[in-house]
Amino acid sequence: MLEKLKLEVYEANMLLVKHNLVTFTWGNVSGIDRERQLIVIKPSGVDYEKLSANDMVVVNMNGDVVEGDLRPSTDTKTHLRLYKEFESIGGVCHTHSTYAVAWAQAGKDIPCFGTTHADYFYGSIPCARELTEQEIREDYEGNTGRVIVEAFKNRSPIYVPGVICKSHGPFTWGKDAKQAVFNAVVLEEVAKMNTLTLQINPSASPASSAIQNKHFLRKHGPNAYYGQ
Amino acid sequence: MLEKLKLEVYEANMLLVKHNLVTFTWGNVSGIDRERQLIVIKPSGVDYEKLSANDMVVVNMNGDVVEGDLRPSTDTKTHLRLYKEFESIGGVCHTHSTYAVAWAQAGKDIPCFGTTHADYFYGSIPCARELTEQEIREDYEGNTGRVIVEAFKNRSPIYVPGVICKSHGPFTWGKDAKQAVFNAVVLEEVAKMNTLTLQINPSASPASSAIQNKHFLRKHGPNAYYGQ
Amino acid sequence: MLEKLKLEVYEANMLLVKHNLVTFTWGNVSGIDRERQLIVIKPSGVDYEKLSANDMVVVNMNGDVVEGDLRPSTDTKTHLRLYKEFESIGGVCHTHSTYAVAWAQAGKDIPCFGTTHADYFYGSIPCARELTEQEIREDYEGNTGRVIVEAFKNRSPIYVPGVICKSHGPFTWGKDAKQAVFNAVVLEEVAKMNTLTLQINPSASPASSAIQNKHFLRKHGPNAYYGQ
Amino acid sequence: MLEKLKLEVYEANMLLVKHNLVTFTWGNVSGIDRERQLIVIKPSGVDYEKLSANDMVVVNMNGDVVEGDLRPSTDTKTHLRLYKEFESIGGVCHTHSTYAVAWAQAGKDIPCFGTTHADYFYGSIPCARELTEQEIREDYEGNTGRVIVEAFKNRSPIYVPGVICKSHGPFTWGKDAKQAVFNAVVLEEVAKMNTLTLQINPSASPASSAIQNKHFLRKHGPNAYYGQ
Repeated sequence: MLEKLKLEVYEANMLLVKHNLVTFTWGNVSGIDRERQLIVIKPSGVDYEKLSANDMVVVNMNGDVVEGDLRPSTDTKTHLRLYKEFESIGGVCHTHSTYAVAWAQAGKDIPCFGTTHADYFYGSIPCARELTEQEIREDYEGNTGRVIVEAFKNRSPIYVPGVICKSHGPFTWGKDAKQAVFNAVVLEEVAKMNTLTLQINPSASPASSAIQNKHFLRKHGPNAYYGQ
Repeated sequence: MLEKLKLEVYEANMLLVKHNLVTFTWGNVSGIDRERQLIVIKPSGVDYEKLSANDMVVVNMNGDVVEGDLRPSTDTKTHLRLYKEFESIGGVCHTHSTYAVAWAQAGKDIPCFGTTHADYFYGSIPCARELTEQEIREDYEGNTGRVIVEAFKNRSPIYVPGVICKSHGPFTWGKDAKQAVFNAVVLEEVAKMNTLTLQINPSASPASSAIQNKHFLRKHGPNAYYGQ
Repeated sequence: MLEKLKLEVYEANMLLVKHNLVTFTWGNVSGIDRERQLIVIKPSGVDYEKLSANDMVVVNMNGDVVEGDLRPSTDTKTHLRLYKEFESIGGVCHTHSTYAVAWAQAGKDIPCFGTTHADYFYGSIPCARELTEQEIREDYEGNTGRVIVEAFKNRSPIYVPGVICKSHGPFTWGKDAKQAVFNAVVLEEVAKMNTLTLQINPSASPASSAIQNKHFLRKHGPNAYYGQ
Repeated sequence: MLEKLKLEVYEANMLLVKHNLVTFTWGNVSGIDRERQLIVIKPSGVDYEKLSANDMVVVNMNGDVVEGDLRPSTDTKTHLRLYKEFESIGGVCHTHSTYAVAWAQAGKDIPCFGTTHADYFYGSIPCARELTEQEIREDYEGNTGRVIVEAFKNRSPIYVPGVICKSHGPFTWGKDAKQAVFNAVVLEEVAKMNTLTLQINPSASPASSAIQNKHFLRKHGPNAYYGQ
């Protein structure tokens, strides 16, 4: 079942390798079929070199495996939480990419210093708080999704398609699995640019809101005029 | 029309990929035919992997498309402004290369710390000011060109073939599209070397003017004796 | 003899190249046959490009060559010491990987800032002390092993499968040669992430013990539920 | 003439590309035939992709071209000075490798923080002083060699096979062209490791002289026991 979605999700996972966002098996991408309320996600701990579209696991919204011989990604419950709360997204991506993890470990929001960031993320990329001991004990992966949602209480997941989780790493999303990976690449590149920016000028300030609005809105929303 | 120039501009755009200066479609190179007053530029938002010489767009000095099925780069008006003001240049290049963007986001001129820089850029590489809200609202891409020109009021675009735009990134130019890309590679490498220089010695000082003159002038101008 | 182990050790050494952990011949991996009390290790100073499984050297627990035409790695006595003291390990790896060496030269333990680290190393990765003049003079390579063991007086080599040696570099180990290399890759990546973390936030603090426990124990020990 | 040496020098120049030490044509390697007092060096400003052994230029000790259709490297007089003063060397290499240049631009000696450095360079790698205006005007390339020699007044060019020139970059040497390139790779890697070391611990101190002696002398001199 869902052969087309499985292929999309498989190809999106392989894009992580192409863009050097993964070491070993550290990363996973999923996609959702909103009508059937089913999710296709990478299996847990399988080498990308050995991965095939058929290895993708199908789970329902409770996380039960509906199809597939392998165990779904350990982060499945985090993906599920995001799909439930962010109703317009079609794909989710998690990596341990180096610079995004560094910002997550530093425990700081990634400020919008320039147009590379503003072209895809509207305003700063939030750092979701660390989980409490109880949240970790009771439902770690599910609560990881809940603290992400908490960080978006006053943010739109469409305008800010990603987050970094304190002491952990980035999650990104988009209209489908491929776009979720695209945003993971942008987040990593922006995280690197901003690390260097602060190294050159520790008191660097965010781009003006006028530039942030211009760049984000010329590519997104009703007045977009960018691209083909 | 302009098949030869289209090929040159296409090949120059592909050099950006070869030198790892672009992520996705972030970058564009153009070339000008001064006699016909026509510009050939990369189309907007097209993957480099799918790009061909025939995709290059021909526009006149007003930015109207003269030939081509695709929309020209969103930065076309910036390129046009530079061609109009810097009459001796034949190619323009724009990228979001990591270290050059970091300096642009830091809002600092790139000082000339050594001979690698002095071999191609005479003195510091200026950081053009951020646009005002009005400049952004009225003609963002055109005014981006105007603030670049403003930064060259007391500089020669021939002796300093590039700039970084505050909160945005680098633009470089040269006698043709290929040389504009060459200077983009040099600017990125120098931006990286200088970031590291300040990390090792925060109070590092520019190279002596004697060395800067020696290195620039042995490769450029009437007394050059470098190369074949 | 030990053809299977030689192949394993050879392939593990080549993984160092695949993961960009070595320059020239800087690195060596070994494996042990606990029953026969024999070790298979890379020869000293041989290019990886010319290396073959047959070049692997077999030595006994005194370091005497039992089979092989080439001289064993100069670090053999360090490997031997680790095998003698850490009785459950089956493979040892030594590299001069860039970021791990930087932490070793900085003389600091690598703190556990996040889950990437906690997934494989339980708590900080210790920096073993510098050897005394006498220790260097009398048995440098053997004493390098002894100071490593000293650093594990209050640590489990199973829970912390690696160390950095002051002014030198990393040694890692595992159940076999391949896992020793795997841990060397993780150590290098974590060393890089943590360097960047401190650059972004000099007062960054370690991940909570709750998160460290969760991530390490969901992958290791009796209650592990991670992977296939 | 000197076909064998031409091939050696050509291959050494191509090693610079293999080890990612050059951008465009920034780098040159030479070798000397001590008996005939002739030097073989890379031509100036020729792409590595188009380079062949036959393009190598033969010059005498005055720098006059004895054979070759192309102009020798602009740095030829610096190479000549080193061959004249350092009588036991057989090859010289110059690059603009990123981290070595950063230290040169920072104007600081590269301290010996660890064994990677001590295995090949005995003590710190000196930063030669900047040339005076007169030295630049009268014989820039020749005087670049003279200030290098000046930095070795109290150092052995055999024990310290390289230098960084203030505001410029590194020169390395060895028993032949290949070893000169080998030392350029080591210098760049050590320059990177040390930059990171100071980032992690700004008050990091050099390795003990006991370790420096041990590592250098186990690979060099009468009591060496390292390698095959």
